[in-house]
Amino acid sequence: MSVVVRNPPRAEHAVVDAFAECGVATVHEAQGRTGLLAPRLRPIYAGAHISGTAVTVSVPPGDNWMIHVAVEQCRDGDVLVVAPTSRSEAGYFGELLATALAARGVRGLVIDAGCRDVAELTRMGFPVWAACVSAMGTVKETLGSVNVPIVCAGQYIEPGDVVVADDDGVVVVRRTEAAQVLAASRSRDERERALRTRYANGELSLDVSDMRDRLAQQGIRYVDHPDQ
Amino acid sequence: MSVVVRNPPRAEHAVVDAFAECGVATVHEAQGRTGLLAPRLRPIYAGAHISGTAVTVSVPPGDNWMIHVAVEQCRDGDVLVVAPTSRSEAGYFGELLATALAARGVRGLVIDAGCRDVAELTRMGFPVWAACVSAMGTVKETLGSVNVPIVCAGQYIEPGDVVVADDDGVVVVRRTEAAQVLAASRSRDERERALRTRYANGELSLDVSDMRDRLAQQGIRYVDHPDQ
Amino acid sequence: MSVVVRNPPRAEHAVVDAFAECGVATVHEAQGRTGLLAPRLRPIYAGAHISGTAVTVSVPPGDNWMIHVAVEQCRDGDVLVVAPTSRSEAGYFGELLATALAARGVRGLVIDAGCRDVAELTRMGFPVWAACVSAMGTVKETLGSVNVPIVCAGQYIEPGDVVVADDDGVVVVRRTEAAQVLAASRSRDERERALRTRYANGELSLDVSDMRDRLAQQGIRYVDHPDQ
Amino acid sequence: MSVVVRNPPRAEHAVVDAFAECGVATVHEAQGRTGLLAPRLRPIYAGAHISGTAVTVSVPPGDNWMIHVAVEQCRDGDVLVVAPTSRSEAGYFGELLATALAARGVRGLVIDAGCRDVAELTRMGFPVWAACVSAMGTVKETLGSVNVPIVCAGQYIEPGDVVVADDDGVVVVRRTEAAQVLAASRSRDERERALRTRYANGELSLDVSDMRDRLAQQGIRYVDHPDQ
Amino acid sequence: MSVVVRNPPRAEHAVVDAFAECGVATVHEAQGRTGLLAPRLRPIYAGAHISGTAVTVSVPPGDNWMIHVAVEQCRDGDVLVVAPTSRSEAGYFGELLATALAARGVRGLVIDAGCRDVAELTRMGFPVWAACVSAMGTVKETLGSVNVPIVCAGQYIEPGDVVVADDDGVVVVRRTEAAQVLAASRSRDERERALRTRYANGELSLDVSDMRDRLAQQGIRYVDHPDQ
Amino acid sequence: MSVVVRNPPRAEHAVVDAFAECGVATVHEAQGRTGLLAPRLRPIYAGAHISGTAVTVSVPPGDNWMIHVAVEQCRDGDVLVVAPTSRSEAGYFGELLATALAARGVRGLVIDAGCRDVAELTRMGFPVWAACVSAMGTVKETLGSVNVPIVCAGQYIEPGDVVVADDDGVVVVRRTEAAQVLAASRSRDERERALRTRYANGELSLDVSDMRDRLAQQGIRYVDHPDQ
Repeated sequence: MSVVVRNPPRAEHAVVDAFAECGVATVHEAQGRTGLLAPRLRPIYAGAHISGTAVTVSVPPGDNWMIHVAVEQCRDGDVLVVAPTSRSEAGYFGELLATALAARGVRGLVIDAGCRDVAELTRMGFPVWAACVSAMGTVKETLGSVNVPIVCAGQYIEPGDVVVADDDGVVVVRRTEAAQVLAASRSRDERERALRTRYANGELSLDVSDMRDRLAQQGIRYVDHPDQ
Repeated sequence: MSVVVRNPPRAEHAVVDAFAECGVATVHEAQGRTGLLAPRLRPIYAGAHISGTAVTVSVPPGDNWMIHVAVEQCRDGDVLVVAPTSRSEAGYFGELLATALAARGVRGLVIDAGCRDVAELTRMGFPVWAACVSAMGTVKETLGSVNVPIVCAGQYIEPGDVVVADDDGVVVVRRTEAAQVLAASRSRDERERALRTRYANGELSLDVSDMRDRLAQQGIRYVDHPDQ
Repeated sequence: MSVVVRNPPRAEHAVVDAFAECGVATVHEAQGRTGLLAPRLRPIYAGAHISGTAVTVSVPPGDNWMIHVAVEQCRDGDVLVVAPTSRSEAGYFGELLATALAARGVRGLVIDAGCRDVAELTRMGFPVWAACVSAMGTVKETLGSVNVPIVCAGQYIEPGDVVVADDDGVVVVRRTEAAQVLAASRSRDERERALRTRYANGELSLDVSDMRDRLAQQGIRYVDHPDQ
Repeated sequence: MSVVVRNPPRAEHAVVDAFAECGVATVHEAQGRTGLLAPRLRPIYAGAHISGTAVTVSVPPGDNWMIHVAVEQCRDGDVLVVAPTSRSEAGYFGELLATALAARGVRGLVIDAGCRDVAELTRMGFPVWAACVSAMGTVKETLGSVNVPIVCAGQYIEPGDVVVADDDGVVVVRRTEAAQVLAASRSRDERERALRTRYANGELSLDVSDMRDRLAQQGIRYVDHPDQ
Repeated sequence: MSVVVRNPPRAEHAVVDAFAECGVATVHEAQGRTGLLAPRLRPIYAGAHISGTAVTVSVPPGDNWMIHVAVEQCRDGDVLVVAPTSRSEAGYFGELLATALAARGVRGLVIDAGCRDVAELTRMGFPVWAACVSAMGTVKETLGSVNVPIVCAGQYIEPGDVVVADDDGVVVVRRTEAAQVLAASRSRDERERALRTRYANGELSLDVSDMRDRLAQQGIRYVDHPDQ
Repeated sequence: MSVVVRNPPRAEHAVVDAFAECGVATVHEAQGRTGLLAPRLRPIYAGAHISGTAVTVSVPPGDNWMIHVAVEQCRDGDVLVVAPTSRSEAGYFGELLATALAARGVRGLVIDAGCRDVAELTRMGFPVWAACVSAMGTVKETLGSVNVPIVCAGQYIEPGDVVVADDDGVVVVRRTEAAQVLAASRSRDERERALRTRYANGELSLDVSDMRDRLAQQGIRYVDHPDQ
C-alpha cells in the first residue's frame, strides 16, 4: 500500500509566490470560508508567513521513515505536509531534516503531530506549523506514502496544492483554483484596506456595511440601562 | 431575546485605571481567590497588562454580528468581553474590528473563542485574551445581546464590571466592590514586596510565615535519606 | 503519610552541569528513547536550557504548602519537580517562591500543574516548565511529601535524578546512569553534527544512512504521476 | 467569604414537578436556546430524567466539605448543584452522601467535577450528572458556600432555580420564569408530536416547514451527479 | 458555494449489506489499516452494527439546515454522514430528523458533532455515532452542501462510499473498492476464527504466528526475576 | 533495552482475591488516597469488578507486539497492565488476545491506550479498562518490555503489585503492602456500612462526624435568605 509518487503537477510558481502576501484568514475567506486546517496547528515561532506547493506525506504513528523518503521528492518552493494515520504526539521532525529540506529550497513544514529542536529551527528560520512540540523520538520501521492525497488536520490536501501559513494558521488552496483564489484574496485585501481607514476614523461597520436595517428586521431591541 | 443595553453604569475611572498596576494573581487573591476566568484564555502576545470596564457580548457559535453591534456601545476605557453561547473555535475578531475599537479608546478584548490576524494585532498593540487563535471565518446571521450579564470562561460578568488582564490571565471585579478590592490588592502588593526582600536574602517562608508549628501539628515527619 | 527526606544522594555535579549542553531530544534518544515527560509541559518563555538534580515534591490538588517546605531542602544546582496527586490547573508557583529558590541556587521548576507571575519570572530569568499558566490561587491546608519518588507528567522521578529541560520539553535521567547517558548524548551530538554538514550540502539521508535497500525490501514502490 | 444561605425561595412545586415530563432539549429550545450546561456533564447511567429546585454549592478543588454542609439545607424536591472554583477531577460524591440526600427527598446531583461509587448509585437509583467518574478522594479542610449564585458548567445558577436533567444533559430555568417556560415547553412538545407523525408518514421538513423558498433565495443549487 | 448533488452512484446493494456482518476493526485491517474515523465518534447506545451508503452533508457550525435538505436525497440503505466546517458541540440531530430518515429506510447517522434526544433514539433503535451528546440547539440560517466529498472525523468520504459502524467506531470503504475489501474482510474473519480456537486451547501467538525467531533477531532478552 | 522478566514475585493469592470485595474508592482511601490511575481509564462495560496481580507491559506507540510476548508470562489470577511510551489512541487489544489471556486465567486488562472488539469482549465477559475505544490497528515491528516497572495512567506499577478495578476506575496496591491495605479497606467498609445506616435514617454527617465546631472555627456563617 506504500507508494511514492514522483513529480506531481504543482500550482504555478508565480501564483504560489504571490500568496505569500495574503494572510491565511484572507485566503480562507476569499475561497468561501473553506480550506482551513484545524487550529491545533500552531507555528513554533511568531512572524513566519509562507506559501508553497504541497509535498504530502502519510506516516504511521511514531514513525518518521517516510519523511526521509519525502525529502528526495521536494524541490524549491515546496512545503512539506505530514499527517499521521492516527493521532500521535511524537516529535517526527527536527533540525537535521530541516537542514536537508532547506538545502532543497523547501519553505517550511506543516505537520499534524509533534516537532522538536524548536530552538534550532527558530535560529535557522525554518518555520514549522505543528500540533505540539515534543522531543519524543520516532522509529523507522513501517512504510507510508508520499505525494498521495491526505487528510491533514481535517483538510483534504493533494500534492501540488498551494499551502499558505502564517501566525493565524494554515490554509490549503486547490491547485486548479489557485489563480482565481489569489485574485479574490487580493480584492478582499483592497476592500479591507479601505475599511480599515474608515474604521480608524471612527466610522462604524453598522453604517459602513449598512447593517442597521437587517438588524432591525431580525428584531434587535435597544434599551437604556435602568440605572442610568 | 436579543437586546442591546445602552449606557450601563461603569466602575469609576480612577479606580479602574489604578488596577492596571495590579497583577491578575494579586487581584484574584485580594478578593478571596474569586473572579478568575478559566486559564484556557491566553494573551495573543506577551507583556500586555490592562484594566478596563466590561462591555459584554453574548454571541451565537460562529457568528460575530453582535461584535459589530457592540462597537457602538463602547467608550474610552472599556474592554470588550465576548462569550459564545456554545463552545466555538471560530475566529470572531481581527484587525478591522480592533481598528474600530481602538478608535473609540477600547483597551483590549477578552473572548472565550478564537481570534485571528494576530500578527497585525501584535503590531497594532491591541491586546487580546482568547481561547485559541483561529482564522476560521464567522457569519452575520443571528442576533445575540450586548451589555447583558454573561458567563465568560466560567465567570459571571456584568457590564461595567472591572476586567484586569495580564500574562497570567483575566480576572473580573464586581463594579460595586472595585474600590475595596483595589485597596486590598495594594496592601497585598506591599506585603509581597516585603516578603520578596526577605526571601531574596535567603529567609524561608517556613520561618517568615511561622509555618513550622502547624506543619508539625499536621504530622509532618522529617527523615534523613538512608543512603546518606 | 507525609514525609520530608533530607539529603538524598544527588547525581555528580560535573556530570549534571555537562548535561546543560545537551538538548532534551538528544538525551532522550541517547538513553533509548526513554525518560521524556509528557509534552503538555511547556516552558513559560523561550530559550531557557537547564540541567540540575531533582528535588521532588508531591502536592495535593490546589495546595502548595509542600513547595514552601521543599525550598529548605534545595541546594545549589537543584531543579524543583512538582506533581499534584490529581490533575490540577491551579497556579502553585509564582515570583515569591522563585525568589526564595533563586536565592538557594535552584535552576528552575518543573511542574505538572499551573504557574503564575510569568511576566515577573521571565524578567527574573527563572525558567519554569508547566502544564499551564494560571493565576488560580492555592491553599496551605494539606500535607504532601518532599524527596520521595514521584510520577510527574508520566515519568517516574527519584530525588537526585538529573533533569534536563529546554524548549523541546523535559527529560529525566536516572542518577546512577547519568555519566553513561552523558557520554552517549555527546557521541550522538557529534554524529549529528557530521550529518548536518552532509545534509546541508544536499546529501540525502536515504544515501547517508543506506536506507534504500531496506525500503525496497519493505516494498516501497516509486511511480511517476500520471499527469506528468 | 464562606456563607450558607438558609431557605432561599424555590420555584413552585407543581411547576417544578411538571418539568419532569419535558426533555432537556425541549426546555432549552423553549426558553430561546439558553440555559444549557456544557455537554461535558454526562449522566452516570442511562434513563434518568428529573426536575427539581437547585441547592447550589461552591466548593474548593479537591475538597467536599461543603457538600456535607449543604445536605442540611436540602429538602424534598431539591437537586444539588455543585461547582468547584477551579477545574477538578476529584470524586467529590459517593454512596454515603447519596444516602443522606435520598433520605431528605433530594432527586439527584449535578456536579462539574467527578463522582464515585457509580455502581452503588446506579443500584440505588440516585442519578448524577458529572464531568467525570473518578474515585479520587477529597479532603475536608477549606470552606465554600451554599445557596449562593454559582457558575456550573458554564451556566449561572441561583438557588431555587429549576434544574431539568435527562440523557441529553442538564438545563437551568430561572425561578421567576419557570411557569412561562413550562408552558412554552409544552407547546413545543405538542408541535413536535404533530411533526413526528407527518415525518413518519414520509413528509419532508422542506415542505412541512416551507423551507424551499428561503433555500432558493439563499442560493441553493441542485445538480445531478455527472456519473448518473 | 452551496450545492446539492442528486443521485450520486452508490456502492452495490448486495456488497453493502454483506458488510453488516464484518466488524469495523476487521474492515479497517482488511483494507490495509485505512479508512477509520477518529475514535471521538462513539455510538449513543451499545450493540448497533450497520453498513450503508454515504449521503454526505457539509454543515456550518451550529446550523443544521442542510440536514433537512439532505433528508430528501436519502434512500433505503443509506447512512447520513455529517461534518461541520469547524468544530462544534451543538446537537444537530434528534428524534424528529431520525423519524424522517427512518421513514426513508436510512440506517443511521454518523456526525462529527453533537446529537440529542438520545433516549428517544435508543427507544426507536435509530443508531447514531457522534462526537458528543448535546442538547444545544442549532439555527437554520446558512447553507452547506449535500453529496459532495467531505472530511468527517479525519477521513475523506465521497457520497456513495460504504460506511460500516459498530461499537468499535466507524470505517469508510471507497465505493469502487467495496467488493474487494469485502472479500478481504471475510478471509480475515475466517483466519481469526481459526486462531481463536487455537488460542482458546492455550496455544500462544508466539508459536502460532512463528514470532520467536524475529523477536530474537530484534534482540529480545528473557531473564528470571532476581527475587525468584 | 528490551527485556522480559520471568516469574516476578506476586502478591499472595488469598490477599489478592479478597480485594475483589473492596471498591476501588475504598482501597484508594484506605492507603491514604494514593495509587489511583487517572480517570481517563474507563471500563468498556459496566459492572465488572476484579482484583489480580499485575503483569506489566511497556509498548511503543501503535505497536502491540509485546502484548503477544506478555501472554506467555501470565498466569491464573493476573491482570495485564499495558502502557505505551507515548500517548496513543490505537486499538492494541481485541478478542483474539482476550481469548488467549482468558485461557490462562487472566482476569482483565488495564491499558492507557485504545481497545477494540468491545462487543465481543462484553459477550465474553473479559473486562477491560482503557483510555479509549478504537479500532485503529497496530503493527508488530518494535520491541518493548514485560514485567518491568512502568508508569500507567500516572501511577508507578511494578509486576506482582495488586490491581483492583471496578466501575469507578483502577487502583494499584504495592505488593508488599497488600495485606495491610486489605485490612484497612475492610475496616473502612465496616465504618461506611454503619454510617450508611445512620444517614439513611436522616442523621447528618455534620453531627455524626462532629463537624460543626470545626466549621465554626473556620468561620462558616449561616444567614437566612433575605426574600424569605
